[in-house]
Amino acid sequence: MAEEKNTNKGEENMIFVGKKPSMAYVLACVTQFNNGNKEVHIKARGKSISRAVDVAEITRNKFVTDAKVKEITIGTDEIEGENGEKINVSTIDIVLAK
Amino acid sequence: MAEEKNTNKGEENMIFVGKKPSMAYVLACVTQFNNGNKEVHIKARGKSISRAVDVAEITRNKFVTDAKVKEITIGTDEIEGENGEKINVSTIDIVLAK
Repeated sequence: MAEEKNTNKGEENMIFVGKKPSMAYVLACVTQFNNGNKEVHIKARGKSISRAVDVAEITRNKFVTDAKVKEITIGTDEIEGENGEKINVSTIDIVLAK
Repeated sequence: MAEEKNTNKGEENMIFVGKKPSMAYVLACVTQFNNGNKEVHIKARGKSISRAVDVAEITRNKFVTDAKVKEITIGTDEIEGENGEKINVSTIDIVLAK
């Protein structure tokens, strides 16, 4: 409550990695750190998980060299397929922290 | 030295995930646990990283339900491309443990 900076309550330090080139998400991470965030969560599902790892590695090796991998969590989300069937999809959450 | 079970020194509890269907690697994991291993390392590079996460999730959710994710490590390997140029590729090591 004390320091609400924007309206994306609690999501300002999260990067959702999808199908764009990795560098788009790397730039988003670097921007979050430059805005003063001490932690950034890099999240992805399914085939984008590999790209999320690339984003974390490129960010900490090339751009924010004082950031470390603080925690990595994997999980499973159940989503609904085209015909209403349940599909399990893997998820990852990589926390980079200064 | 005391209990060397096979000749793959130190690699007997490692599963290298590549391009086969996930269930091939899940079966390998389950076999490792059934052979008495308390820990299995699931490793992958590049685009296979997503599949490694699938393998870990399917193994612990469906087959070895007393196994937990003990540790996840990400890194970068430098490999040589077709024309001798250096290419960075991301890596993952997921440790499942009973």
